[in-house]
Amino acid sequence: MKILLAGLLILISTFASAQEVLPSWNEGKSKANVIAYVQAVIDTKSADFIPLKDRIAVFDNDGTLWSEQPIYFQLFFAMDSVKDLAPEHPEWKTTEPFKSVLTNDMNGVMKSGKEGLFKLLAATHAGMSDEAFDAIVINWIKTAKHPTKKVHYSELVFQPMLELLDYLRANGFKTFIVSGGGIDFMRPWASEVYGIPSYQIIGSQIEVKYDNKKIVRLPKLRFVDDNAGKPVGIHYHIGQRPVAAFGNSDGDFDMMKYTEANKQYKTLELYVHHTDKKREWAYDRKSHIGKLDKGLDYANLHHWTVVDMKNDWKIIYPFQLNK
Amino acid sequence: MKILLAGLLILISTFASAQEVLPSWNEGKSKANVIAYVQAVIDTKSADFIPLKDRIAVFDNDGTLWSEQPIYFQLFFAMDSVKDLAPEHPEWKTTEPFKSVLTNDMNGVMKSGKEGLFKLLAATHAGMSDEAFDAIVINWIKTAKHPTKKVHYSELVFQPMLELLDYLRANGFKTFIVSGGGIDFMRPWASEVYGIPSYQIIGSQIEVKYDNKKIVRLPKLRFVDDNAGKPVGIHYHIGQRPVAAFGNSDGDFDMMKYTEANKQYKTLELYVHHTDKKREWAYDRKSHIGKLDKGLDYANLHHWTVVDMKNDWKIIYPFQLNK
Repeated sequence: MKILLAGLLILISTFASAQEVLPSWNEGKSKANVIAYVQAVIDTKSADFIPLKDRIAVFDNDGTLWSEQPIYFQLFFAMDSVKDLAPEHPEWKTTEPFKSVLTNDMNGVMKSGKEGLFKLLAATHAGMSDEAFDAIVINWIKTAKHPTKKVHYSELVFQPMLELLDYLRANGFKTFIVSGGGIDFMRPWASEVYGIPSYQIIGSQIEVKYDNKKIVRLPKLRFVDDNAGKPVGIHYHIGQRPVAAFGNSDGDFDMMKYTEANKQYKTLELYVHHTDKKREWAYDRKSHIGKLDKGLDYANLHHWTVVDMKNDWKIIYPFQLNK
Repeated sequence: MKILLAGLLILISTFASAQEVLPSWNEGKSKANVIAYVQAVIDTKSADFIPLKDRIAVFDNDGTLWSEQPIYFQLFFAMDSVKDLAPEHPEWKTTEPFKSVLTNDMNGVMKSGKEGLFKLLAATHAGMSDEAFDAIVINWIKTAKHPTKKVHYSELVFQPMLELLDYLRANGFKTFIVSGGGIDFMRPWASEVYGIPSYQIIGSQIEVKYDNKKIVRLPKLRFVDDNAGKPVGIHYHIGQRPVAAFGNSDGDFDMMKYTEANKQYKTLELYVHHTDKKREWAYDRKSHIGKLDKGLDYANLHHWTVVDMKNDWKIIYPFQLNK
């Protein structure tokens, strides 16, 4: 039986490798780096071989797996929720940051700062059961559209990154999301969109309590999964140092350096550099969202892989596949 | 290719089902309940069918997957660590609870209460990197022996529960540990012993910080994964309500009621009842460790499965397999 099974596995993997790898990636350094890394670490005869249990790959979400402009999509969700809830809150007409949200005054929202942002999150992300919140998020992801791209937000995921996730998983990697965004905002849809189970999604978190067989969401921040919070979140949730890390901003820099410092195994660090003004957005060192500055300098110095979206990717979004 | 693969999968599953299921379980109600549940929920033609992604099974550890008498094994670890560290801490000779530990005075240790316990944990579980702590735990699990059973602690896992974990996984369930014990005390060895990856192990947690590419453990409690903490921990880590829950004490009761309240799917709740004074230990309603009182009443009333260790299990520990 064991011999039969081994034979089947070889047969299956032979068929798999005959398919084209990363088809939406142009030939070049970025694609070659990724493939060379994977082929090295899955080769049992190589000094770089990594056992299955240690093939842990971590991905940022905003700007790495989907777009994040002109503002994080979760903020659009919060603003849409405020509009939905407004009839029950007449006081919002005269209270910031709600007033600015209701009058579509983005500058006003921004001016309310971190405190205003927290008020928005508390009003829209807490005070209900986890299951009720899941339903709200799912309804939004199915119906809301991006203001300029005019497609559903979940259509703004990067096709080349979906292929990268698949390629890593086909080679025995476990793929995790490690995002500054809300863990419970991602879980209801990201499982299906990215093929990543909810327990492999890590993010910023509010407190919850257990009450009468339900989980109730509280307006209290528990954990911010950004900057140094990313390696900390990886420790809390995964408990292993990754071997591959994928990001797009300085907020991912600590996670990527933590990965690079893995003493046991060969590692891969990859930055998605937003260089495509026409098909997506172009921004880096001076952006208010997804700023990539010190990370870019370090990446260039340390020969990390830096994806040039404009030149490395044939298409950006899945809906462009058949065009 | 698809037809070939489907044929292979049928072949493989046919071979698997030909093997005896749960061989260390005596025939009886407990074994029959477990098998009937699994067969119902994996049957695509059944109204009770559960899709793969929702087959989430959660297991308590102490008293459910391994023994927990005369005290939680993690407390033995803490006391052994105090003895190892004592030469660097001459003040411990006159300070409680360290003095009691060093003179093997268990009553003295117990008298120090929660505060004393926290001092023990802080002195032995914090102040080093996560990787240094892993190495300490692994060294202990490989060398330390239980005071009366005279075998390594990891030999005191329950063979029938190992078979249950395997049986569930063979039928597409994801198995998680949800323990009141320390998450970082379990992860270094539990992955291998139970076949559960570190990111599917949930437990009580201390704070850590990221410092110079390392995770450093801090003497500050972050989360207690017991009682109502168990459903809360399940929410934080898994983000889905389980369909099957396995425990042995009132500390697991909330987790099991949370599972039972799953409105979407048929569920299974199972208590391991410690009834075997000769081969393991016998205790329940009045035990200071693993007290099972209100949970037992509820289980009997609600027709949960209650394993009678003495009568339901042929053997208790793996080392008894060949005797």
